[in-house]
Amino acid sequence: MQQVKFLLSGYLGAPPGALFFKGVRCNFPHSAIPVPLREKLHLTPFRVPLESPPMIPHLTTALTGPLLDLERRMLDRMPEIERWFRTQWQEHEVPFYASVDLRNAGFKLAPVDTNLFPGGFNNLSPEVIPLCVQAIQSAVERVCADARGVLLIPENHTRNRFYLQNVATLQMILRRAGMRVHIGTLNPEIDRPTTIDANGNGSLVLEPLAKQGRRIGTNGFDPCMVLLNNDLSSGAPDILQAIDQPIAPPLASGWYNRKKSHHFHVYHDVARRFAEIVGIDPWLIDPQFAVCGEIDFQERAGEECLASNVAMLLHRVQSKYREYGIDEKPFVIVKADAGTYGMGIMTVRDAADVTGLNRKQRNKMAVVKEGLEVTSVIIQEGVPTFESINEAIAEPVVYMIDRFVVGGFYRVHTERGKDENLNAPGAQFVPLAFETPCIPDPGGPAGCAPNRFYAYGVVARLAQLAAAIEVEQLSEPA
Amino acid sequence: MQQVKFLLSGYLGAPPGALFFKGVRCNFPHSAIPVPLREKLHLTPFRVPLESPPMIPHLTTALTGPLLDLERRMLDRMPEIERWFRTQWQEHEVPFYASVDLRNAGFKLAPVDTNLFPGGFNNLSPEVIPLCVQAIQSAVERVCADARGVLLIPENHTRNRFYLQNVATLQMILRRAGMRVHIGTLNPEIDRPTTIDANGNGSLVLEPLAKQGRRIGTNGFDPCMVLLNNDLSSGAPDILQAIDQPIAPPLASGWYNRKKSHHFHVYHDVARRFAEIVGIDPWLIDPQFAVCGEIDFQERAGEECLASNVAMLLHRVQSKYREYGIDEKPFVIVKADAGTYGMGIMTVRDAADVTGLNRKQRNKMAVVKEGLEVTSVIIQEGVPTFESINEAIAEPVVYMIDRFVVGGFYRVHTERGKDENLNAPGAQFVPLAFETPCIPDPGGPAGCAPNRFYAYGVVARLAQLAAAIEVEQLSEPA
Repeated sequence: MQQVKFLLSGYLGAPPGALFFKGVRCNFPHSAIPVPLREKLHLTPFRVPLESPPMIPHLTTALTGPLLDLERRMLDRMPEIERWFRTQWQEHEVPFYASVDLRNAGFKLAPVDTNLFPGGFNNLSPEVIPLCVQAIQSAVERVCADARGVLLIPENHTRNRFYLQNVATLQMILRRAGMRVHIGTLNPEIDRPTTIDANGNGSLVLEPLAKQGRRIGTNGFDPCMVLLNNDLSSGAPDILQAIDQPIAPPLASGWYNRKKSHHFHVYHDVARRFAEIVGIDPWLIDPQFAVCGEIDFQERAGEECLASNVAMLLHRVQSKYREYGIDEKPFVIVKADAGTYGMGIMTVRDAADVTGLNRKQRNKMAVVKEGLEVTSVIIQEGVPTFESINEAIAEPVVYMIDRFVVGGFYRVHTERGKDENLNAPGAQFVPLAFETPCIPDPGGPAGCAPNRFYAYGVVARLAQLAAAIEVEQLSEPA
Repeated sequence: MQQVKFLLSGYLGAPPGALFFKGVRCNFPHSAIPVPLREKLHLTPFRVPLESPPMIPHLTTALTGPLLDLERRMLDRMPEIERWFRTQWQEHEVPFYASVDLRNAGFKLAPVDTNLFPGGFNNLSPEVIPLCVQAIQSAVERVCADARGVLLIPENHTRNRFYLQNVATLQMILRRAGMRVHIGTLNPEIDRPTTIDANGNGSLVLEPLAKQGRRIGTNGFDPCMVLLNNDLSSGAPDILQAIDQPIAPPLASGWYNRKKSHHFHVYHDVARRFAEIVGIDPWLIDPQFAVCGEIDFQERAGEECLASNVAMLLHRVQSKYREYGIDEKPFVIVKADAGTYGMGIMTVRDAADVTGLNRKQRNKMAVVKEGLEVTSVIIQEGVPTFESINEAIAEPVVYMIDRFVVGGFYRVHTERGKDENLNAPGAQFVPLAFETPCIPDPGGPAGCAPNRFYAYGVVARLAQLAAAIEVEQLSEPA
């Protein structure tokens, strides 16, 4: 029998020197077991060092006061916060799943991107997979309690081995939740079942979609529901329209149909309502933004709109910085209002920087994923990332399934500055899984890992809620 | 920074030699990270031995074939099983929580007791506490989405330190789920808030109940819901009647109102329906039983009924043993039809054993918890326990919150035989927490820990479902 070498004591607060029963942990102090029983069971108590506390990246700013205060308030008002979320999810349909990119500036904690078709499940800690399995059971029950078979539709890029690991992880979670899973691809190059290696996570079988009347599936597989892990940047495919099975998330939530500005407009209102409950300035969790709707980078149309909005936003951020005594130079992020994958993104510190872009810069901004042309941009307050680990910048990404925060990871990047987008194309980040679930330790201090992750989970859920309301508005008949 | 010494790789199937990032696990093969990045991040890969597989007690019978077959069938039909449970929980209200005692005979896996007011949460592994927190959020949402404050009403025995640890664990789970929790006691000796030590799990404050009109609470605390952890052996207390707040589980599910024979009668039907789905003989999961309704041990009334039922049941079990080629001597368990806590229980191998009981034996059988007199007994097929660990007998106990199996433990006892009740008064058992959640590994073999625990979780949920239907029938107006 193996010897268990350490004690994961984070949750029950077991003291150092807990008892081990030939390698199996007992939640028992040694003294509680009568001597004859100890001998009969061959109990060999040995002291185990308490594991070091779970690691979170170092906050490299002196301005941690506001964040600790925010975390403290969230812990103190947890019952109100959780109740509020419960009532919100009675009014709004919770997305099947979502991931939210956050920035933690120490003085401000804000979402910068909300993904309704999250990749990256492979980056979560193995310890949270049971939470994912349990949460996906809730999600499936909500969408279609009758489900046994799930058709998972991934992105088309079959050569990105990290993305393939994500698909393999999603498939594994669904299977452990008791689903029969087939992977149907929209990729026209795949015209027969094709086995591809998922980079150490086993292999995946991609199958072409097959439609029969109003039912979608793959050859010989008629699923009860469709789970999209494809963000539909280039539109809702014909083959998925007018089908009988429920599709989660709904086709309307594809990126072809979403605008970042719409999302942050709704988020602004959600953050305002939440801030009232917790008693904070909503700016502490809400990035300011502006929109330019008539941009043509190639034709240099709309440059003035861009420049004046950049100037206005920098001014507003500067005055907030003054209010809080923040000695940082404000910056804004200019990005395509539709689309994803970190293309078409620019960091701007001065309005003059957006006039007179050279050809290379304009080309970079002009198109996003799948060749979509950028015609509208959002100018968003830049939230610097002050979390770092071994001098590398870290940006938290939080995952939700149904209404549960199931975990997250840090996107760690060495090559970039604290004011740059970490999800840029080719960005070689290293994911660092959160070591504990995002479940708070009400007895612990603000700033300890579970409580920091709880705060991340709260802000991420605000963004998830905003996405839910946003999609509702999109789905409403015109 | 600490070094993480091992890899909990049970879930993502990460290969040995995964990468560690200064003590933080990356779900990355080392080769996937470019050399400059490795150096910049001070990545120091080191090979880690795969942890030994999680431990489950040894099955000390040659007759494991039927069990492995049962586990295999459950794995193969998992989508049907999970879907069936989902549809059942649409028709029947899922109990807030429950624990089920199982016996594993290798040739048969059956529930022997279903507790709707489970103690023993302190015996669960710390790793499953996040699952408990997540599941209790579902349970609260179902009972009362509006809840912020929960009044937890425990048993009255304030001197049982293991039970106090259970109450402390429940309180901790509720708090982490975002509830405000007060503990209100029915114990008349407690007439002011009283702090008691929870045996290393912090301290508990017990408060006397306070009723105002139709609202129950404690002084200054008006909860949204009442969570009972008191099995109401001696009846539904007046103070809890006619109150406005929802009570979970409902008063009607107290032991004063339940009968084991009713439970197993309903279970028999549930097992039959389930067996059809999986294609097995329901006997493999269903203990046979009979009832004697007019017993007075002190007056020796009803002995003939008992003896004839024991003989009949032993005969039925014997013929099943013959059918399956089981070379064991059948036995039955005689126990009080109402009540709990392992009092009033007898192992019988021959009908003659129940006639001519001596005074001591009769006294032992005559009363159960809180002095309740035994007037009716259930005679149940004995299911031998063939699981053992270091020669000690082990009996699995499975915990559910809402419709989720959150974990379990083995009740390990050295002093008793495989055919005896392990939950007897004074039984000094050692709990061994299940090392993995009860989430299956569809790729793994039958008999591996996750799949064995999955089978336990399925049978336990069948008993939970039976309890739900049973309580429905109890609650129906007469």
